[in-house]
Amino acid sequence: MIFNFASDNAVGASALVMAALAEANAGPALAYGQDPWTARVEAAMSELFEREVAVALLATGTAANALALACITQPWGAVLTHEESHIADDECGAPEFFTNGAKLVGLAGVGSKLTPEVVTAQLARMPHGAVKQVQPQCLSITQATESGLVYRPAEIAALAAAIRPRGLALHMDGARFANAVVALGCSPADITWKAGVDVLSFGATKNGAWAAEAVVFFDPAKAEQMPWRRKRSGHTVSKGRFVAAQFEALLRNGHWLDLARQANRLAARLAGGLGAISGIRLGWACEANAVFGIMPQAMAASLRADGALFYDWSARSLPAGEALRPGEGIYRFVCSHATTEQEVDGLLAAARNLAVAG
Amino acid sequence: MIFNFASDNAVGASALVMAALAEANAGPALAYGQDPWTARVEAAMSELFEREVAVALLATGTAANALALACITQPWGAVLTHEESHIADDECGAPEFFTNGAKLVGLAGVGSKLTPEVVTAQLARMPHGAVKQVQPQCLSITQATESGLVYRPAEIAALAAAIRPRGLALHMDGARFANAVVALGCSPADITWKAGVDVLSFGATKNGAWAAEAVVFFDPAKAEQMPWRRKRSGHTVSKGRFVAAQFEALLRNGHWLDLARQANRLAARLAGGLGAISGIRLGWACEANAVFGIMPQAMAASLRADGALFYDWSARSLPAGEALRPGEGIYRFVCSHATTEQEVDGLLAAARNLAVAG
Amino acid sequence: MIFNFASDNAVGASALVMAALAEANAGPALAYGQDPWTARVEAAMSELFEREVAVALLATGTAANALALACITQPWGAVLTHEESHIADDECGAPEFFTNGAKLVGLAGVGSKLTPEVVTAQLARMPHGAVKQVQPQCLSITQATESGLVYRPAEIAALAAAIRPRGLALHMDGARFANAVVALGCSPADITWKAGVDVLSFGATKNGAWAAEAVVFFDPAKAEQMPWRRKRSGHTVSKGRFVAAQFEALLRNGHWLDLARQANRLAARLAGGLGAISGIRLGWACEANAVFGIMPQAMAASLRADGALFYDWSARSLPAGEALRPGEGIYRFVCSHATTEQEVDGLLAAARNLAVAG
Amino acid sequence: MIFNFASDNAVGASALVMAALAEANAGPALAYGQDPWTARVEAAMSELFEREVAVALLATGTAANALALACITQPWGAVLTHEESHIADDECGAPEFFTNGAKLVGLAGVGSKLTPEVVTAQLARMPHGAVKQVQPQCLSITQATESGLVYRPAEIAALAAAIRPRGLALHMDGARFANAVVALGCSPADITWKAGVDVLSFGATKNGAWAAEAVVFFDPAKAEQMPWRRKRSGHTVSKGRFVAAQFEALLRNGHWLDLARQANRLAARLAGGLGAISGIRLGWACEANAVFGIMPQAMAASLRADGALFYDWSARSLPAGEALRPGEGIYRFVCSHATTEQEVDGLLAAARNLAVAG
Repeated sequence: MIFNFASDNAVGASALVMAALAEANAGPALAYGQDPWTARVEAAMSELFEREVAVALLATGTAANALALACITQPWGAVLTHEESHIADDECGAPEFFTNGAKLVGLAGVGSKLTPEVVTAQLARMPHGAVKQVQPQCLSITQATESGLVYRPAEIAALAAAIRPRGLALHMDGARFANAVVALGCSPADITWKAGVDVLSFGATKNGAWAAEAVVFFDPAKAEQMPWRRKRSGHTVSKGRFVAAQFEALLRNGHWLDLARQANRLAARLAGGLGAISGIRLGWACEANAVFGIMPQAMAASLRADGALFYDWSARSLPAGEALRPGEGIYRFVCSHATTEQEVDGLLAAARNLAVAG
Repeated sequence: MIFNFASDNAVGASALVMAALAEANAGPALAYGQDPWTARVEAAMSELFEREVAVALLATGTAANALALACITQPWGAVLTHEESHIADDECGAPEFFTNGAKLVGLAGVGSKLTPEVVTAQLARMPHGAVKQVQPQCLSITQATESGLVYRPAEIAALAAAIRPRGLALHMDGARFANAVVALGCSPADITWKAGVDVLSFGATKNGAWAAEAVVFFDPAKAEQMPWRRKRSGHTVSKGRFVAAQFEALLRNGHWLDLARQANRLAARLAGGLGAISGIRLGWACEANAVFGIMPQAMAASLRADGALFYDWSARSLPAGEALRPGEGIYRFVCSHATTEQEVDGLLAAARNLAVAG
Repeated sequence: MIFNFASDNAVGASALVMAALAEANAGPALAYGQDPWTARVEAAMSELFEREVAVALLATGTAANALALACITQPWGAVLTHEESHIADDECGAPEFFTNGAKLVGLAGVGSKLTPEVVTAQLARMPHGAVKQVQPQCLSITQATESGLVYRPAEIAALAAAIRPRGLALHMDGARFANAVVALGCSPADITWKAGVDVLSFGATKNGAWAAEAVVFFDPAKAEQMPWRRKRSGHTVSKGRFVAAQFEALLRNGHWLDLARQANRLAARLAGGLGAISGIRLGWACEANAVFGIMPQAMAASLRADGALFYDWSARSLPAGEALRPGEGIYRFVCSHATTEQEVDGLLAAARNLAVAG
Repeated sequence: MIFNFASDNAVGASALVMAALAEANAGPALAYGQDPWTARVEAAMSELFEREVAVALLATGTAANALALACITQPWGAVLTHEESHIADDECGAPEFFTNGAKLVGLAGVGSKLTPEVVTAQLARMPHGAVKQVQPQCLSITQATESGLVYRPAEIAALAAAIRPRGLALHMDGARFANAVVALGCSPADITWKAGVDVLSFGATKNGAWAAEAVVFFDPAKAEQMPWRRKRSGHTVSKGRFVAAQFEALLRNGHWLDLARQANRLAARLAGGLGAISGIRLGWACEANAVFGIMPQAMAASLRADGALFYDWSARSLPAGEALRPGEGIYRFVCSHATTEQEVDGLLAAARNLAVAG
């Protein structure tokens, strides 16, 4: 049996998303986003975020992040970000490509989270107006983070306050935005523009869509360049209703939150179970839909032999005082909307067996 | 009633493509193209083209063209192309973006087709090794062309022969490749590598898919850079099976050719009908799935008032001796796999009524 | 004996420029343009142009053009220019590199000059706001042109009026600005900002400097990005006084105009002489410091055998009705500040001998 | 009185360089590097480095570094470098611009030097062929370093050995190459290709030229792209003899080494003097022409009030165990070919007075 905790992009679309696609398939519609689905999603986003927003629909999260950054960062600008963020480590230089060569400055922080202190210290090293250096123009944070933690509204507001004197824009990589909203029990507005976020990469692919992402500008004026940047990067999907219909299905009646709730719930179940097994401890608290288990490498190998799929992870941003001991590894287990209790319990049973035997 | 001849990207996916997507939705799969659907499509492509090819699956045609060009053109290179080709006129500079600033050199030609003579003359103006000028490195042709014509195998081979002494690569924009294959009654190999094509943008979106395109390298060594170029441009779809499943459905049992045959057949019907109406003549022969009608602007306006959707077109590459007369316009009518005889006949009836009344 | 009419960049610096460099060599100075020479040149430029300008000093003309264009054209923008302009044909894609992929749109025109009609017609083909196309953002003209002609103030003003409704910026490539000012007998302001020019590439290298060019922004606000663009393209000369000292010497007491006057005077002498020789006629009127002679290719070959250096030229923008006859070529002869009457008369004597013998 | 230790680019050219320029000024020469001066310098470089090399002459050091890196690093490549190297910190993103978006990965190391250990550890974090990450393709080191230290031949060879299995190219930023050669008493070949360096930025501007830099490729095949990259970045100086004549003067009879020897000798004198003053200690050993003094900030302020010019520096790469104490700063004093004993002794006297008074 396979227990697939590799990633939340390892599963297909939710049944409601598939149904919406089938429905959207009938009849003709104008191409390149001039269709009614797209118009409805744009309106729904403004309602969701409780203010007028500008929205660009896209098919990949890397495109969403890179286009968002390109709209707010000049080629001689710098993007401050966590040293292990997705934009820094997992997008093969997409931000550099789309910004025409801006620099990503990686900062340290526990659990892939940044603090005002580290941001302020970095800004002090990059004086305003110095021509020999790139100029900091954007701070990018991930919500939920690559370590499965969430930023509280006050934490985001504190970061926004730290960059405001220098005029940086605040970007949020929300590849797992739904998981964060559910975890915090807040409104989408609370952790975005109300806390100082300027631009959001709003991910749906990892939350029940096939391929649907949005860049949301809370100041529509900042979106002015987006149509051309999207087109010339090949990201204007011709049959635009295809992306829009996915989003529409997700936003209808809170379907997107239901899916995220399911993922988070099962991650909590997995975290609780794993944390109670002798020889296993968690790298960070489980706040969203990912669990990071520290365990003997031999145990991880046995779990994989038992059919479990999960990735090795980096220990670089473990809390102070926490570290891998000889022979240990840290592993990421991600739950999705399609994860089942059987899978979680199956993995836990396998782990318990190994712990007893070990 | 609406008669939609706006574009072949104005309709959804074919029923078989939708069914394949629904089927592909079950269960987990590795992301980023490591799934079995992608592997099967890659194998199917090699079979289809009768040789080992390297394939990159993508979601948009602009991405396919721009990535293909970037793999064969350096930043100081030039791409020779028709002055009204899609890459020159309709992609908002995507080739320039992806190649990091190469130059597109637009050449004239009837029916958006290039000839060896015009290519050879341009090459003579760009001496090999001249440092002050960009260096010609690629010739890009469109099959079927933006004017609805097709290149015969011998025509392609003659273009390939014209560029061979200077070492240019030959790219084919096959956004409507299926329509050309059907029109010519040849094999895909006949009008690609057997005629000298190095890289093909193989379009499926306009031929029954939601969002599915492929770059096909007939020399797999030329594809070496593609994984990184695709990733850093945000075009590596995470749930890769989604694109692959569409292609798989299309390639199975010649479904892609059936869809194109339907589109071509209805275009021929439309062309025959329009050409026989007094006051209307065709700009170019109808060889694939698009019809270009020259008619009084007033008639076009009335057709639109009657519910017909179609675009104004450019008269720039009309045959020698043909030209718009005062008050005339040229208009493009595109048939797709979903176009019906009723739509064609409805449009023709409306046009005939206007001709009689006019 | 060598008669060198190859180019005005084939000679060294004027004696006064060399003396200024020697004088500037003494003692230390802050680097990167923080030196007093640079400050004095900036002030002198504002005086010369009769308004406050922003100035960026550079070492090459290609850098001046490309940086100027990059400051006023976005990556998805287009620069309208003559199809044979230096930026289009002789800079190996530098504008595309510095603008991160903008498109140069080449327009036809006699004598490398553009007219409001051709510009207006092109703008009509590029509708405002169309996302599928690059957006026209700049018109670039050359003064004096690549064919040795000059734009009158009213001609420039008419071009400025043609682009104003669409908001394009007007750039002037003034690699031979001095020759134009002398030819027109006007003030530098008359043919720049007073006629609607926004940004000028002000060349000195071809007019008696070693390596000195300036970008002059008549609206200093448009120069905001320049310090970073210049630095990151490696064009901020560390010993900045070196460039500034050359300009200072040239601007002092009208030395730059004296040098240009000498070049123009000898070009006029050469044009008068060549035009009177049987078998030779001029391609365009000689208005600045270049002469374009149409003559039998055999005569050109003999002149070269006699020691004359000059380049083959393009006949593409000859006046309507003028064309090369079989066996003829068109050749460019450029006079510089260092050209002597002996050289001119020597060339003329050689040509006359050949004409008599021919 | 002014004691100028701000930088070695704060002074003009050596008398012999000025004389060479004056001599080179006579008569015409072909432009764009087709002149005999350039040819002679290219030959002299091959002799100097004891093997056939390809050379590109340039006017700025930033251009030399960025062009060198662009020739050996693809857009999806990474350049490993010290976290405080000039290319990482002082060129406003020029490497990113010229490489079209490659990533600079900053590594830690004492005295701005890298070790095989830190390089090897970083390579382990960037697995070969991983598509989601940029690929390490170049290691760039500075000789002499930004902290005034020099790499021994064996140290360079060890770095070359560390990167060889992964196929990275080794670039040396030799803005102060002359100072390193003199310091080590070795041949230029010993610390370049014989130790594994592939490409050298050979600086002359800081060593007695006005504006003269060279990129030296020890494998001429690696230089193939350089002519186009140089031209399209605006770095092909039209009056090429101007740069070449400077280099020719420097290379003749070891003039370049004499100038560097003078700079190094005075730096040693300054280092010896400063290190003996109470309250002052050196950050790193003085191995080339820069001295880094740690002293009370109040003392530095007083020195500046006394007319001394020098820059604040970063303490980030101080040796383990060394750190700034409260109230202290670290300051850089650079000696050039034009620095005099009087200046050094004047500064030392001023510092001694302050130390006694303090």
